[in-house]
Amino acid sequence: MLIVQKYGGTSMGDPDRIRNVARRALLARKAGHDVVVVVSAMSGETNRLLKLTSEIARRPSQREQDVVVSTGEQVTVGLLALAIQELKGKSRSFLGHQVRILTDSAFANARIRSIDDTNLRASLRKKEIAVVAGFQGIDEQGSITTLGRGGSDTTAVALAAALKADACEIYTDVDGVYTTDPRICDRARKLDRVSYEEMLELASLGSKVLQIRSVEFAMKYKVPLWVKSSFTDDPGTLVTEEDKAMENVLVSGIAVTRDESRFVIRNVPDKPGIAARVFGALADADIVVDVIVQTPAHEDARTDMAFTVGRLDTEKTRELVRKIGKQIGAGKVEHEEGIAKVSIVGVGMRNHAGVAARMFQVLADEGVNIRVISTSEIKISCLIDEKYAELAVRALHTAFALDRTETKKG
Amino acid sequence: MLIVQKYGGTSMGDPDRIRNVARRALLARKAGHDVVVVVSAMSGETNRLLKLTSEIARRPSQREQDVVVSTGEQVTVGLLALAIQELKGKSRSFLGHQVRILTDSAFANARIRSIDDTNLRASLRKKEIAVVAGFQGIDEQGSITTLGRGGSDTTAVALAAALKADACEIYTDVDGVYTTDPRICDRARKLDRVSYEEMLELASLGSKVLQIRSVEFAMKYKVPLWVKSSFTDDPGTLVTEEDKAMENVLVSGIAVTRDESRFVIRNVPDKPGIAARVFGALADADIVVDVIVQTPAHEDARTDMAFTVGRLDTEKTRELVRKIGKQIGAGKVEHEEGIAKVSIVGVGMRNHAGVAARMFQVLADEGVNIRVISTSEIKISCLIDEKYAELAVRALHTAFALDRTETKKG
Repeated sequence: MLIVQKYGGTSMGDPDRIRNVARRALLARKAGHDVVVVVSAMSGETNRLLKLTSEIARRPSQREQDVVVSTGEQVTVGLLALAIQELKGKSRSFLGHQVRILTDSAFANARIRSIDDTNLRASLRKKEIAVVAGFQGIDEQGSITTLGRGGSDTTAVALAAALKADACEIYTDVDGVYTTDPRICDRARKLDRVSYEEMLELASLGSKVLQIRSVEFAMKYKVPLWVKSSFTDDPGTLVTEEDKAMENVLVSGIAVTRDESRFVIRNVPDKPGIAARVFGALADADIVVDVIVQTPAHEDARTDMAFTVGRLDTEKTRELVRKIGKQIGAGKVEHEEGIAKVSIVGVGMRNHAGVAARMFQVLADEGVNIRVISTSEIKISCLIDEKYAELAVRALHTAFALDRTETKKG
Repeated sequence: MLIVQKYGGTSMGDPDRIRNVARRALLARKAGHDVVVVVSAMSGETNRLLKLTSEIARRPSQREQDVVVSTGEQVTVGLLALAIQELKGKSRSFLGHQVRILTDSAFANARIRSIDDTNLRASLRKKEIAVVAGFQGIDEQGSITTLGRGGSDTTAVALAAALKADACEIYTDVDGVYTTDPRICDRARKLDRVSYEEMLELASLGSKVLQIRSVEFAMKYKVPLWVKSSFTDDPGTLVTEEDKAMENVLVSGIAVTRDESRFVIRNVPDKPGIAARVFGALADADIVVDVIVQTPAHEDARTDMAFTVGRLDTEKTRELVRKIGKQIGAGKVEHEEGIAKVSIVGVGMRNHAGVAARMFQVLADEGVNIRVISTSEIKISCLIDEKYAELAVRALHTAFALDRTETKKG
């Protein structure tokens, strides 16, 4: 088998932990597998480097920022290769430009275009454990690029796809994907399997186990993805293609995102191009918009447009939207902070009516008022007052039969 | 003019100092020059990274060690480019593999083979200040290499040679090359000019202003080399080709190296190949041998062989030399710690008899016993008891008319 393993910053946090990762990689190698290991920077290092750049420049050029922050992974690949060699294993480190992970030139948020597997294959043939720097690539001009927060997950999955790996194992500090955040709901249950689609919704909805782009990549190339803990021997969660058994489960998980602000623009003229104008302006200002809901137009050909942004962007958004509101002849702009988004996710809900109704009933029974509703094929999201977020998660977790039955380990 | 500037770790030590370097580089750019800046890692950073590798591995593979330690300069090129941009200048950072500084594969101590000036020329044509990572290169296989301690000096001089620069300015925390270490002799005087040959001897004799290889490079390619302080506007010292005026000065500087151990192997058979055997074995054991002196053979075709090594290598050397001494049928091995080497250097002494005699007389007058004497065309070195080192330097400094006459600047 060819296995790609990825270890995050916590797993690489100090020399002892790096030795632990070396031992795990060697176990797989000794079991006869070809092993490629992708690593993140030591925990805290990327932030330390970003702080340095922000001390020098108020708005650092992202090309140069990438030069600086990509050193975090350069240090850990070297250290892990050394740790493996110290345990009598063969190993060789690879930077993005040495593998040749070619990306576009969107510095700080680049996308992988192609991966050359020649050098890695040569290393594997020599029975080396190939240690690859996550998060980084190189563009056509030879400049160093980075893939955005959590980008090492994407590096791992992309390598697994390029090498047609039998498994991609993402090691983290939790032992798998849970039905919901265990810190909120102590009856949260670890999932043995979850579909790519569900994982995608869970990832995008605030479950920070995997970078969303890595899940998209895994889905596209059908890479079997394992989420495991680097500190236990738990088999973890397999993220894979949907199967029949999954469809029998209505809801696989519950995600929650807090600290959002909700905006409503009243009486927006219902004309083509208006939405593009509003959200184009927000995008230009680097404001990430989450839920967008537009109600059907009234008889006066006017509509209400609602959306959410992160709390930190509230002020910037308010100013911008007021200005645009005037330009497009809309009515008043309302906004409200302290909003949470609670979502239920499951491929099973596709074939079952009534899941939405049940969700709304559960929230109503708990006296939780729903501000905005948004749905996709396998997800229903409700914006609610943030103070009810935990209550809502716990009630939904029980109502959709996600509670663990056995007592909690540990 | 095309100017290559190099700033050391102290000059790049924190964000304020990096801004200072940015201002200096911009001054040269605004004066109409093309500017290439070579930087070292922030002071202390290379040691921090080496400590990390030594925590992971007792004898780290030098390939992987180079991957880790080269990140120090990667951080500073990014930060300096940002600092220049923040001051409204145009700038772009270059790593060893982006310039293309091709080296051999002697990791941790690589030598530059060739420099491709295409990318730097393109950057200069765009009126950018090109900021290049010192100390690092890349080998034929695409592995990162480093050039050894002080390697950034060599990067700067090699770039100056490749670009046919009009000047290479080495900025450091002292304002030039001194007649001797000012911490030892407060009448030490800054030299306005010094020849490559003299600088070579001074560098190799423990004056740590410039890496010796950078001086060799500068001499070979006739690069006009300035040693300057990044904290003052002093013109510094020009290292250049020997001229008539220099020959009128008998002695340009006095160097001192301490903490050496002296070995003598008695009654060594005077046969071809014996010296190679002794010093080959020491080289294989990574022991750096300094002065080597062999006296003419006695009537019994036997000779005494003396040499010095660093104090830290004393024990290892003793064991090795005893073993080899037996093998080659030599007599007993003596050794002595606490030895200093005091040397006078000057292109002028080439044409003047009596300099050596005068040096010996000065030392004799101070009651300093000379253990070993070694000379080159422009240098005379005496090994003496370490406790007399400072006394010897000061006495020689006065005797060879090097003392400054004006009072020391504040």
